[in-house]
Amino acid sequence: MTVTSGWLRSAGVEWSTDPEVLAGRRLDRSGFEPAGGPVAVAFPRSADEVQTVLRDAESSRTPVVPRGAGTAMTGATTAGAGTVVLDLSRMNRIHAIRPDDGVAEVEPGVITADLDRAAAAHGLRYAPDPASLEISTIGGNIATNAGGLRCAKYGVTRDSVLGLDVVLAGGRRITTGRGTLKGVAGYDLTGLFVGSEGTLGVVVGATLRLRTLPDPTATIAASYLDIADAAAASVALTAARVQPVLAELLDAATLAAIGFPGGGGALLIVQTDGGPEEAERATEVLGRTATTLRATTDPAEAAALLAARREALPALERLGRPLIEDIAVPRSRMADAVRLIQDIARRHDVRICTVAHAGDGNVHPLIVAGAYGEPIPAAAIRAADEIFELALHLGGTVTGEHGIGTLKRDWLARELGEQNHDLQLRIKALFDPHNILNPGKAL
Amino acid sequence: MTVTSGWLRSAGVEWSTDPEVLAGRRLDRSGFEPAGGPVAVAFPRSADEVQTVLRDAESSRTPVVPRGAGTAMTGATTAGAGTVVLDLSRMNRIHAIRPDDGVAEVEPGVITADLDRAAAAHGLRYAPDPASLEISTIGGNIATNAGGLRCAKYGVTRDSVLGLDVVLAGGRRITTGRGTLKGVAGYDLTGLFVGSEGTLGVVVGATLRLRTLPDPTATIAASYLDIADAAAASVALTAARVQPVLAELLDAATLAAIGFPGGGGALLIVQTDGGPEEAERATEVLGRTATTLRATTDPAEAAALLAARREALPALERLGRPLIEDIAVPRSRMADAVRLIQDIARRHDVRICTVAHAGDGNVHPLIVAGAYGEPIPAAAIRAADEIFELALHLGGTVTGEHGIGTLKRDWLARELGEQNHDLQLRIKALFDPHNILNPGKAL
Repeated sequence: MTVTSGWLRSAGVEWSTDPEVLAGRRLDRSGFEPAGGPVAVAFPRSADEVQTVLRDAESSRTPVVPRGAGTAMTGATTAGAGTVVLDLSRMNRIHAIRPDDGVAEVEPGVITADLDRAAAAHGLRYAPDPASLEISTIGGNIATNAGGLRCAKYGVTRDSVLGLDVVLAGGRRITTGRGTLKGVAGYDLTGLFVGSEGTLGVVVGATLRLRTLPDPTATIAASYLDIADAAAASVALTAARVQPVLAELLDAATLAAIGFPGGGGALLIVQTDGGPEEAERATEVLGRTATTLRATTDPAEAAALLAARREALPALERLGRPLIEDIAVPRSRMADAVRLIQDIARRHDVRICTVAHAGDGNVHPLIVAGAYGEPIPAAAIRAADEIFELALHLGGTVTGEHGIGTLKRDWLARELGEQNHDLQLRIKALFDPHNILNPGKAL
Repeated sequence: MTVTSGWLRSAGVEWSTDPEVLAGRRLDRSGFEPAGGPVAVAFPRSADEVQTVLRDAESSRTPVVPRGAGTAMTGATTAGAGTVVLDLSRMNRIHAIRPDDGVAEVEPGVITADLDRAAAAHGLRYAPDPASLEISTIGGNIATNAGGLRCAKYGVTRDSVLGLDVVLAGGRRITTGRGTLKGVAGYDLTGLFVGSEGTLGVVVGATLRLRTLPDPTATIAASYLDIADAAAASVALTAARVQPVLAELLDAATLAAIGFPGGGGALLIVQTDGGPEEAERATEVLGRTATTLRATTDPAEAAALLAARREALPALERLGRPLIEDIAVPRSRMADAVRLIQDIARRHDVRICTVAHAGDGNVHPLIVAGAYGEPIPAAAIRAADEIFELALHLGGTVTGEHGIGTLKRDWLARELGEQNHDLQLRIKALFDPHNILNPGKAL
C-alpha cells in the first residue's frame, strides 16, 4: 500500500493523506489519545473496495482501524501511528425496507436515526436507540453492540441483527445469519461479529429486524427522598408485571447539576407502552414512596418530563470534560452502586453525577474530569478504576453498552477470567492471524 | 475410560453399561438410526463430574454425546458405535430465582416448564416455549437455540440466555456472558455456545433472563378461503402495529387431518397482549378477508381456539410417522412456501400437512412418512429434500428452530456458503481439536 500526499484513487478506492482529514479521524469520544496518528484514510464505496483495502493491508501488514462516525466512548475508533483508517461513512445506502418481512437491508454507514425514520414511514421502527443515534452509524452500533434507552423492553443492537455481510482480514467475504426473522443453521457467527469492535471483520452490510410501532406511551416522573427509594420503586415494577420501555434514574448529584426544580434525592422517569392497565399499575407502584409524581399520556408533556434526563450530560459538560462510565450491576444492587459511587467521589474529591438505565441495571457515572484539552486528572482515573472494581464486586460488568476499546482492556481479563480470555485471544488469532484489524482494541 | 457391565462409580461419577440404559439413550425424536450404539452412559451430578468425564474422554479419544431429554428432531442427540453418552438429566437444580434482578440460575437438566412455573410464583416467566417444554431441558433448549410459539414477540432461547458455565473439551471450565441483564465485555461466546448442539462445550449452568408476565391476552381464530388470504392477513398485522405473541397458521391439509369443523382453506390463530387497542386492531385486520372469525379474552375459550393447533401433530401421528420439517422463509413468501409444499406433496404422492409460526415465517411441513418402525419411504425423503431446496430458493433457511443435527448436514454448507462453513469448521477445531464433542453433528 503506497500512499502519497493528498487525495488520490488507488485500485478504484478513494484515499486521503490530507493532514486535516487524518486529524479528523484520529480520535473518538473517549478522550483517549493514541501515540501518533493514521497515515491514510480510505473511503470505500462498496464491499469490493473494502476487500481491496483489506487485501492490501494484509499483504503489507498495515493495521486498519474501521470507523463509522467515531462516536465510540472507549478508544475503539482511535487511530495511532502507522494505521490506516477505513472510513465507512460513504457506504450509507438503505438497500431495502421490506415491511411485510419486518426486515431492512443496509450498508454500515447508514445513520441510525435515518434508518428508524425510513422504517417509520412503513409503521415500523428500528428499535435500538443509543444516545448518539442522530450521528452514529449502524456499523458502529453493530461494532459495539450499542444499547440505548428503550432496549430495556426492545433489546440491544444484537437483538435486531439477523445477518451480516462481512469482509474478513485478508479480504475474503462471508455472509452470516439469515434474511429471515428466525433461523439456527450453524454457529452464531453473527453474534460473534456484533460487539467485536472491528477486530474480527469489517461489516459491509446488515440485515436488520424492524419492529412494530407500539401504541403511544404513558410517561411517569417520580421524585424520591433518596436513591434507595427510587431504585426500589424501579425494581418493584417487575413484580407488578410492568415492563417499562425505558426507566431512567437520576441521582441527587445529577439533579443538582441540572438545577432540577425542587432538587430532591433522586428522580425516576418511566415510560410504558403495554396499554392503560400497565400504565395504571406503573403509576400505582411508583407512587407508593414518591414525594411527587406526574404522569401523562400527552406527547408534549412526556417530552418535558424526559427533558431532565436529556439535560444531564449537557449540564455536566458545562462543569468540565465528562468521563462517561458505563457499568452494569444486578438490578437489586443499583442503589448500592449509586451510593458507593458517591463514596468514591468524596474520597477522591471528584464530582460524579450518576444516571442509570434502571430497567437493566446499566449505571452511567459521569465523572467531571478537569477542563477540555487538559490531561485527565489522576484522581478521576483512580475514581474510574474504583468504579470498575465496584462493578465486579457487585456481580456486574465493567461495560454495559459502550464496550472495551482501549480504556478497559486491563479490566476485561479480570472480568472474563483467564480461560475465557485465552479463548477470546485464540478466536482473534483464528480470524485475524496477522493482527491487522483494529489491533490493540477490545481484548 | 474403562467401563465394565452394569452400574458403577468411577472417579466419583455414576456410570451405566446396562443394555436397557444404553438403548434408551441411543436415539432422539428424529427417526435417525445411527450405526451401533453407545458403550456407556455417564450420569454426572456436578460440573466437577462433567470435567472428569471430559478429561477422560479426551485422553482416551472417546466421542461424547451430551444429552438432556433426547427430544432433538434432527439426530443431534443420537449416539452411535463407540460413543459415551453424557446424560445431564440429574443436574436439574434451580439454584436461584432472583425476581428483583429478573434472573434465574439453573443447571442444564432443569425441565423448561418447571423453570417457567418457578418463575411464575414470582410474577415472572421464562419466555421460550418450545412445544416439548414439559419434557425438554434447558440445556437441550440452549444446545438447539429452541424457539416456540411466543418467540414471535418474546424471542428465542438465545434472547433469554445471559451467561453460561461451560466445560470445554478436555475438561477446562469457563464462564461466559454475565449475571446482569446487559453487558458487552468481550466477544459473545455465550451466543456461540447457544445453538452449537453440544459440539463446542457442555453447558453445566446457565444464567437466564426472566420476563414480566404480561396482561391476559386476546385470542382470535379466523378462517380463510385459501392460504394466500391467511398469510396476507398475518402479514398485514405488522402494518396495523400489532405484534402478536403468537400467530399460528394451519393449511387445508392440516384442517382436513384434524377434522376441523367446516374445514376451509386455512386457519389463522393470533394472540396479543399489548392492551385492548392492539386487540381491536388485530381483530379488524384479520376480519377483512376472513370467512369466519371468533375473538375472545376468556382463557377457557382461548384454549378451545388454540386446540386446533395443538391437535395438528397428534392427528398426523394417527396417519403414520411424521417427519417434522422446519424451514423459515421471509414472511412475505409464506403463502408461496405452503402452496409449493403442496405441489411437492402431490408430485411425490406424499401426504404433507403444514403449520407455521406465521409471526416469524417459520414453516413446519409435517410429512407422513410411512408406518412407525419401518424405514422412511424414499418418496418422503425426496419430498423433504425438495422442501429444503425450496426454503433456500425463497431466501430462507433449512432450519428455523430445530437445528442441523445429522439430518441436515449436507444442506448446511449450501446455505452458509463455503467461506462461512470453512470458518465454522475452524472454530470447531479450535474448541475441540480432537473432535470429541458430539462428532458428526451440527456441521
